[in-house]
Amino acid sequence: MIAIDWGTTSLRAALLDAHGHVLDVRASPQGILNVPPGQFAAVFDSTCADWMKAESGVCLISGMCGSRQGWLEAPYCPCPANSADLAEALAWVEPQRIAIVPGLSFTHDSVPDVMRGEEVQVLGTLDLLGLQDATLVLPGTHSKWVSVRAARIQGFSTFMTGEVYGLLRQHSILARMLPADEPELDTAAFDRGVRHAMSSSSLLATAFSTRTLALFEQLNGPELVSYLSGLVIGEELRAQPPGTVADGVVVIGSPALTERYARAFSVCGKRIQTIGPEATWRGLWRIAQTIH
Amino acid sequence: MIAIDWGTTSLRAALLDAHGHVLDVRASPQGILNVPPGQFAAVFDSTCADWMKAESGVCLISGMCGSRQGWLEAPYCPCPANSADLAEALAWVEPQRIAIVPGLSFTHDSVPDVMRGEEVQVLGTLDLLGLQDATLVLPGTHSKWVSVRAARIQGFSTFMTGEVYGLLRQHSILARMLPADEPELDTAAFDRGVRHAMSSSSLLATAFSTRTLALFEQLNGPELVSYLSGLVIGEELRAQPPGTVADGVVVIGSPALTERYARAFSVCGKRIQTIGPEATWRGLWRIAQTIH
Repeated sequence: MIAIDWGTTSLRAALLDAHGHVLDVRASPQGILNVPPGQFAAVFDSTCADWMKAESGVCLISGMCGSRQGWLEAPYCPCPANSADLAEALAWVEPQRIAIVPGLSFTHDSVPDVMRGEEVQVLGTLDLLGLQDATLVLPGTHSKWVSVRAARIQGFSTFMTGEVYGLLRQHSILARMLPADEPELDTAAFDRGVRHAMSSSSLLATAFSTRTLALFEQLNGPELVSYLSGLVIGEELRAQPPGTVADGVVVIGSPALTERYARAFSVCGKRIQTIGPEATWRGLWRIAQTIH
Repeated sequence: MIAIDWGTTSLRAALLDAHGHVLDVRASPQGILNVPPGQFAAVFDSTCADWMKAESGVCLISGMCGSRQGWLEAPYCPCPANSADLAEALAWVEPQRIAIVPGLSFTHDSVPDVMRGEEVQVLGTLDLLGLQDATLVLPGTHSKWVSVRAARIQGFSTFMTGEVYGLLRQHSILARMLPADEPELDTAAFDRGVRHAMSSSSLLATAFSTRTLALFEQLNGPELVSYLSGLVIGEELRAQPPGTVADGVVVIGSPALTERYARAFSVCGKRIQTIGPEATWRGLWRIAQTIH
């Protein structure tokens, strides 16, 4: 089969064998923001027409490609949902050949939440690690915390962690105290930020300490960057309902991010597992297995 | 006496009689950011040299004019502090004639917090309303929550509410869903935002609902602006430690802001008092009474 992760700013495609092993991978910067109107089929062909010709299997695509701005809208599938539910809700671009995996929606406290693409990484991770019950964290611009019971995604919530960090880092009054380039992580300052966030009640209050610690010369510019990162990630951890991590936590993402989250969890006395974003291939393969 | 509120972006001066009544007020856009280096005395003279000539009383100045970037640095006075403590810590520009009121510092959980100017508004409010114990809120770019016992400021904390609202409103992904101009307050949407913030644990999570409520067409653009305002102010209220409001709350500021906060408090079933920023004059007059 062919597995594609077609997101907002990039496209990655993989050729998988019958057991889900990756035979080949291709990447392109043609995320959906860079695809001219009506050109999705052409971009698809230029990426993997040769694979499609050589293979008789199915091609599954996850990510923002299934949004209103993508190739074909795949309406959100409501939680709870497992891989069979997603397989049934596929949006077929070409019958039996090319389909888009829908994202998930979850309504809590009368407010909807959504994801597109992360659900596939979650299902792939469960499969790779042999988990039935877990809390999975997908850190990033909009971090997702996903609750899984009996291999079914029960619900999730989105935290604008990466985006708010960028806003505070670049556009707020705090930016004046911070170096423009990204220094190496200062672990002591990062840990201090995590601890302060965990003992506080809101980032609205803790963020201001970045300014006062500069004013009283307790931390220098590069240290403050790490401190602010610790504050924001620590806020994400603090905000989880009690008991969230009882079943063990898996953080999914690039090493740069998962290592930082592992550190933040360890400041709170918790150990986690990490896995790379290649869990996407396993998730798409798993969904393909359940297509009737 | 002459009372001056000399902040970052503006300067306001008042001539007061012996009882603290305002005889005349002048305003200028020459906040400290608009004063060329070395020109503070010249700006002062152009604002009120005639008053200084006619009056034998003292002139007290509050606000960022006492910061490192101002006329003369008035080091922060530590909490707890009352008007006599501030009078003793005045930074004299000209002996017996012109002095700058220091700001306050407060250290909690090993992290310092600071204010400059708000402490004077707080003391003025206590005097005007005859209060000894209260929680006072000064909403704005950096909102202050101030705890007063026995007419002494015990401590305070800063919330970057107004600034974070502006960042989310103008620079985040949410900005794409919001009209550029500022619509009138939609009270139902504002109240919904306050309630959602109060039942949640972090603005990092609730902010994303501004996007999903647009996606599912539950709120339109102008409504979303009010909803986001409710989310951010609601987060500030949610984050207060239990019992904060036991002694009654006074919100100090312009009617546009204090009315919005009064509405947010009422959503939480709490009534508050409000007072305008002219409490500054009363606070400076009160401090002047305690100079020896």
